[in-house]
Amino acid sequence: MSSFGRVYRVTTYGESHGKAVGCIIEGMPSGFEITQQQIQYHLSRRRPGQSSLTTERSESDTAVILSGIQNNITLGTPICISIANSDTRSSDYSQLSAFPRPGHADFSYRMKYGCNAESGGGRASARETAARVAAGALAINYLEEKHGILIISWVESVENIKLPEDLIWTDREEIDRLGSIEITTTENGDWFYKNCEGVSIDKDGNIINAEIEGQREIVNTRCPNPDAALRIAKKIRDTKIDGDSLGGIIRCKCYNVPSGLGEPCFDKLQALLAHAMLSIPSTKGFEIGSGFEGTHMLGSQHNDCFLNSEKGLFPMTNHAGGVLGGISSGATIDFRVAFKPVSTIKKPQLTAKWDGDLEVLEAKGRHDSCVLPRATPIVESMAAMVIMDCLLLQKMQSSS
Amino acid sequence: MSSFGRVYRVTTYGESHGKAVGCIIEGMPSGFEITQQQIQYHLSRRRPGQSSLTTERSESDTAVILSGIQNNITLGTPICISIANSDTRSSDYSQLSAFPRPGHADFSYRMKYGCNAESGGGRASARETAARVAAGALAINYLEEKHGILIISWVESVENIKLPEDLIWTDREEIDRLGSIEITTTENGDWFYKNCEGVSIDKDGNIINAEIEGQREIVNTRCPNPDAALRIAKKIRDTKIDGDSLGGIIRCKCYNVPSGLGEPCFDKLQALLAHAMLSIPSTKGFEIGSGFEGTHMLGSQHNDCFLNSEKGLFPMTNHAGGVLGGISSGATIDFRVAFKPVSTIKKPQLTAKWDGDLEVLEAKGRHDSCVLPRATPIVESMAAMVIMDCLLLQKMQSSS
Amino acid sequence: MSSFGRVYRVTTYGESHGKAVGCIIEGMPSGFEITQQQIQYHLSRRRPGQSSLTTERSESDTAVILSGIQNNITLGTPICISIANSDTRSSDYSQLSAFPRPGHADFSYRMKYGCNAESGGGRASARETAARVAAGALAINYLEEKHGILIISWVESVENIKLPEDLIWTDREEIDRLGSIEITTTENGDWFYKNCEGVSIDKDGNIINAEIEGQREIVNTRCPNPDAALRIAKKIRDTKIDGDSLGGIIRCKCYNVPSGLGEPCFDKLQALLAHAMLSIPSTKGFEIGSGFEGTHMLGSQHNDCFLNSEKGLFPMTNHAGGVLGGISSGATIDFRVAFKPVSTIKKPQLTAKWDGDLEVLEAKGRHDSCVLPRATPIVESMAAMVIMDCLLLQKMQSSS
Amino acid sequence: MSSFGRVYRVTTYGESHGKAVGCIIEGMPSGFEITQQQIQYHLSRRRPGQSSLTTERSESDTAVILSGIQNNITLGTPICISIANSDTRSSDYSQLSAFPRPGHADFSYRMKYGCNAESGGGRASARETAARVAAGALAINYLEEKHGILIISWVESVENIKLPEDLIWTDREEIDRLGSIEITTTENGDWFYKNCEGVSIDKDGNIINAEIEGQREIVNTRCPNPDAALRIAKKIRDTKIDGDSLGGIIRCKCYNVPSGLGEPCFDKLQALLAHAMLSIPSTKGFEIGSGFEGTHMLGSQHNDCFLNSEKGLFPMTNHAGGVLGGISSGATIDFRVAFKPVSTIKKPQLTAKWDGDLEVLEAKGRHDSCVLPRATPIVESMAAMVIMDCLLLQKMQSSS
Repeated sequence: MSSFGRVYRVTTYGESHGKAVGCIIEGMPSGFEITQQQIQYHLSRRRPGQSSLTTERSESDTAVILSGIQNNITLGTPICISIANSDTRSSDYSQLSAFPRPGHADFSYRMKYGCNAESGGGRASARETAARVAAGALAINYLEEKHGILIISWVESVENIKLPEDLIWTDREEIDRLGSIEITTTENGDWFYKNCEGVSIDKDGNIINAEIEGQREIVNTRCPNPDAALRIAKKIRDTKIDGDSLGGIIRCKCYNVPSGLGEPCFDKLQALLAHAMLSIPSTKGFEIGSGFEGTHMLGSQHNDCFLNSEKGLFPMTNHAGGVLGGISSGATIDFRVAFKPVSTIKKPQLTAKWDGDLEVLEAKGRHDSCVLPRATPIVESMAAMVIMDCLLLQKMQSSS
Repeated sequence: MSSFGRVYRVTTYGESHGKAVGCIIEGMPSGFEITQQQIQYHLSRRRPGQSSLTTERSESDTAVILSGIQNNITLGTPICISIANSDTRSSDYSQLSAFPRPGHADFSYRMKYGCNAESGGGRASARETAARVAAGALAINYLEEKHGILIISWVESVENIKLPEDLIWTDREEIDRLGSIEITTTENGDWFYKNCEGVSIDKDGNIINAEIEGQREIVNTRCPNPDAALRIAKKIRDTKIDGDSLGGIIRCKCYNVPSGLGEPCFDKLQALLAHAMLSIPSTKGFEIGSGFEGTHMLGSQHNDCFLNSEKGLFPMTNHAGGVLGGISSGATIDFRVAFKPVSTIKKPQLTAKWDGDLEVLEAKGRHDSCVLPRATPIVESMAAMVIMDCLLLQKMQSSS
Repeated sequence: MSSFGRVYRVTTYGESHGKAVGCIIEGMPSGFEITQQQIQYHLSRRRPGQSSLTTERSESDTAVILSGIQNNITLGTPICISIANSDTRSSDYSQLSAFPRPGHADFSYRMKYGCNAESGGGRASARETAARVAAGALAINYLEEKHGILIISWVESVENIKLPEDLIWTDREEIDRLGSIEITTTENGDWFYKNCEGVSIDKDGNIINAEIEGQREIVNTRCPNPDAALRIAKKIRDTKIDGDSLGGIIRCKCYNVPSGLGEPCFDKLQALLAHAMLSIPSTKGFEIGSGFEGTHMLGSQHNDCFLNSEKGLFPMTNHAGGVLGGISSGATIDFRVAFKPVSTIKKPQLTAKWDGDLEVLEAKGRHDSCVLPRATPIVESMAAMVIMDCLLLQKMQSSS
Repeated sequence: MSSFGRVYRVTTYGESHGKAVGCIIEGMPSGFEITQQQIQYHLSRRRPGQSSLTTERSESDTAVILSGIQNNITLGTPICISIANSDTRSSDYSQLSAFPRPGHADFSYRMKYGCNAESGGGRASARETAARVAAGALAINYLEEKHGILIISWVESVENIKLPEDLIWTDREEIDRLGSIEITTTENGDWFYKNCEGVSIDKDGNIINAEIEGQREIVNTRCPNPDAALRIAKKIRDTKIDGDSLGGIIRCKCYNVPSGLGEPCFDKLQALLAHAMLSIPSTKGFEIGSGFEGTHMLGSQHNDCFLNSEKGLFPMTNHAGGVLGGISSGATIDFRVAFKPVSTIKKPQLTAKWDGDLEVLEAKGRHDSCVLPRATPIVESMAAMVIMDCLLLQKMQSSS
């Protein structure tokens, strides 16, 4: 279905080339202050056309709040947000209509529904995720303001270019770090980058982290290491010229999540996160904590032994990724999501048309060559929805 | 929650050391013939004490059907299955009560609920999965008999021992293979092994696939390659003696799944499978098709181009793992699940007690050193629940 | 929550004085042809300002389809419909802000959410039901076209004025009647009235059924008996002048509903209908078949004995109201809904203000004096949602 | 489905003549103390064979707790309760197999599922409600102990015999009364009767409230007026001898329910209560507050004006039945449920057999002639489930 969550419940709507995309958010507590700008901030991080690395389709992605918020205060009622589609260019798709694009949802949608949206990717387009980011923005702001929870993701790798390991701090260090940093509501996500040497943020909140071929520009690779970011930016640019596409891995950490979240046995926190992440277009894998690498360890190496701290018992390592038995332990939630390369490419592919004949397809249209830079706010939004939902559910365990 | 699925809905109950574990299955179509033995077959593949590689806790795991089936025919009403706990040994746990076991749910359960089941792992114990296998058995039988769907999983690796790659056939070959094999309802799962040289099945349906130290015995590593199986069996045995534990990877394929299953945008087929798999105790990762490895490919390499076949268009490779845009494409569903090493180990660990003092823990109790051999029926059961649920939902798309 | 249904799932949004009201409809099968006009037809039957008997607030209630329908064909994806609020007059509400209106949701909303929408009734306003009617219109059209199901409701009583009993046909007669009538998709609902002597329909689809004080006008009492309708129209008009309000009873029948719908034990068809009806603002009671009157009968009188017919066994009377054991029997579904008098009245009431002081309240604002005439499409829409949901679920019982 | 509730979620199972009936309860908060006896108390009030007025089928209805409670403390995990069927007498049903019983679910179950449970009423039997009473007992105890909420129901009428009106107190009086009464956990339900003159309770908790034909015996009509109870008891006895059956009305009040419960727009408190009540076998109607009678009132009469009290604003009358806009107002929840006469009767009925031939049916089997006396704990249990669910959901509105 197009709904996610049990009590913080988000339902999205909208085709890529229809009138609008958007969502209804149920379960947002009343009396919470939030502005349109706070929502827009996250949409702008996802919007197409934000830098030369993304698709040329240009959408302002302005969130219009139709209900549930009045004078910047939530009413406790359903919040409907609408985001218009303005820059659709259906003509690009006329050639595509003869083909199911390889690796794309064209084929399976027709098998399921007996029809396809006539142009664009319909519901399978990543455009649908704009609605998720709007819904996530509310959760992100609530979690940060009311519970001090921070959700931050970044690009860990694109194809074979990987963030240097020394940037992957141990959790002990992260906690210390967190302690010494002033966090403000409007700048969630920025905190991380601010603490990375050589990265700066421009007046519009964009991250400038690379000089490419001598020219300093906004590239927004969302990779916090300048060297890796530069190489990623070049790689994306070259691949785009080549008409091909790239995948990669996004890593996400959720700080200060209280212990006790997650609803075993089926709604374990990692199960909900995996569900959330694998519902994002182009995703192929999810791992938490030690993940697939952890299968090479012995139990005696993998177990995170407990230490006593001021706040109570705390695991001294974090192979578990913040989750024990499907319930948050209080340690940082730490997971990775694998994105396959984008399926719509300009490079020629020999593939069957709907009528069965093999023909060469060279797909036109404006598509990202690599979704990773724009996908970090989507990952954060989905993580926020899961944690918000679990946090509200956990309130029911309170004593009275 | 302890419920899974939207229309084929399974709710499990039961603590490890309580009176019983079991489940209620809602949404099973009426008029389907199934015997207690068909359910028991799958439970026996999961049950503890089945070979020298597993925990010594011995449970017959007899499924008692309390409702919903009469004269071996489903009534369409809720099917309640109860599986008694008989061989609990609470005394082993008295020492443990001072500690939250590292890597275990002890800690997080107390944080969530303010209490723990007094012995055993409570709901966090893998014992809960017996109920899932019972519920999965119904789905497995229905999918196979009514739709010719086969769900098969095997152990792909334990620690660093990996199934040789040449056993990982391409899907084209699998399809040819499927065509030449006679499949019977009662032997689901066996088919795969039967076609692997050097593996035989004894009269009780157990798989004999290794000789260890000159002695041929039933080891049930659930790894279909005799050499790898032998090495895995030895590794598990040695690790057990050492008081340590092992993790590994299970691979699962679902054959003959019709195209059109999965409910975007949030209930994409891979998202539901990831949810299902990450709800199994000890799991840390899920990947479908090319998974994390696929992030190193270019789009032009990753895209599965279409060919025409007798049954219509068909992807000629399967990097997608059988899912396009979250909907099954008709190709084989192909995914992997990472299991971390078991957390309860006999090896000494220095860790904080509930009272905060550091002390050495040497955990007694009868625990698997490696859950992989017993976990294949759990993976298959969860996959079957997901596919069953999606298949029933897809019926609503039919024209009338 | 603001969602209704399990597989035909409708989520509504919108405050009375916000930007818009509307809904997302999930689960509508793909490939179904429906026009905006077919949806608009039902909205026009509900819209305020349609006749002199309703509130003066005038809204065109134009349904804008934002997604899920393309070239008048459903895509199988979520259908979002938006209906703008244009004629809000917040100033009327300034006086009200000091009071919780007696009998109104003002008080309980503040108790629940800690705040109220600043003017109008917010979510408690009957304006929210416009979204339901839009969602119901899709179901009504689908049920009629694909399954020949007709859902018709009418005003049975307003205060003490009651439809003469001889208009309450037995079901046998209804079935005969149904057989001799040609039904067209665009005129659902009209059929009933067409067969009542003395009632005519104007070119806009409005029902002219009374002459009041010598002047023939459109009154839309939705009572199919000219005499009763005339008396009801006069009563409503007089009460309005008096600043008071009226309640009444709506009866609804659903013809040609196939047997087998309803999901015991908790989602019995009558339970879902009761849930649906009691979710409509101002409702206080629901009864099906013999209802409260039936408690005075003996079992031997109440039981509907079976007859054989061409279509198979059929109950010869219908005290059950079309439902046996919570499952449709194939007989006409027949139920009644009680609406209390509208709470916002101009007549003075001595009641406590928010600050606790007693004061006289004379409520301004434009309100219906009697919601019954406008409520029939709401009742039909909710009934259609329930039947649609059950019908889709029942598809899963089919053999393959 | 066989599940009810969103966060306090109850799933029942069991056929009338199968091995057992029972339920799984999800969402019960952890750390709550409850004994098997506290659950059994409510089951005993529902159990068959409790007095000469009920069916002769005699079941001890012993609740066996399989999970989720340890040492009388809830663990927060699913609570599975099993109640064995011991006194089934299938032979009584052999004659019935040729017929769909008039007014019974036999017909519709076969239409839905293509089959019937081979004897007894299967899931349609009121036996299923034993599971509801067990689940309700937990909620009743929790609501009373943690929130001081009392849920009490009684028989208001059987056929034409009605409780005298002077027993229907105004709410003001009820509140005063409540203030002067000591309430203990184990005696919920008894409180009401204790305050009615001429009614006494025996040592087993049974209510003795009538002398029939000079002989004082336990009759348990659950009607709190001795005269009415006597007449009801005689009526039931006479009708039983006659082979016929009776219906009636149960009234239920929920005291001390906090304001703010209910989730508009679709899950209004009265909508959930109506759903709950109409899911009980044999129910045909539900009304809250003024109900159907209220349709005869003017708004100025019906509106409950507010008074200031120590606890804040409070409606001085209760035509609303404790609910405003679908949300509890803090006033007593007050509703009625109509039960039709039992369908299985010994009196001869001329009705079609499955094969279409008309024949006289004289149904054997042990059936209640009037379910009302045994239905009060079912009504209370369903009400408790609804309020529990809403109360837990409302916790999510709390500020932090």
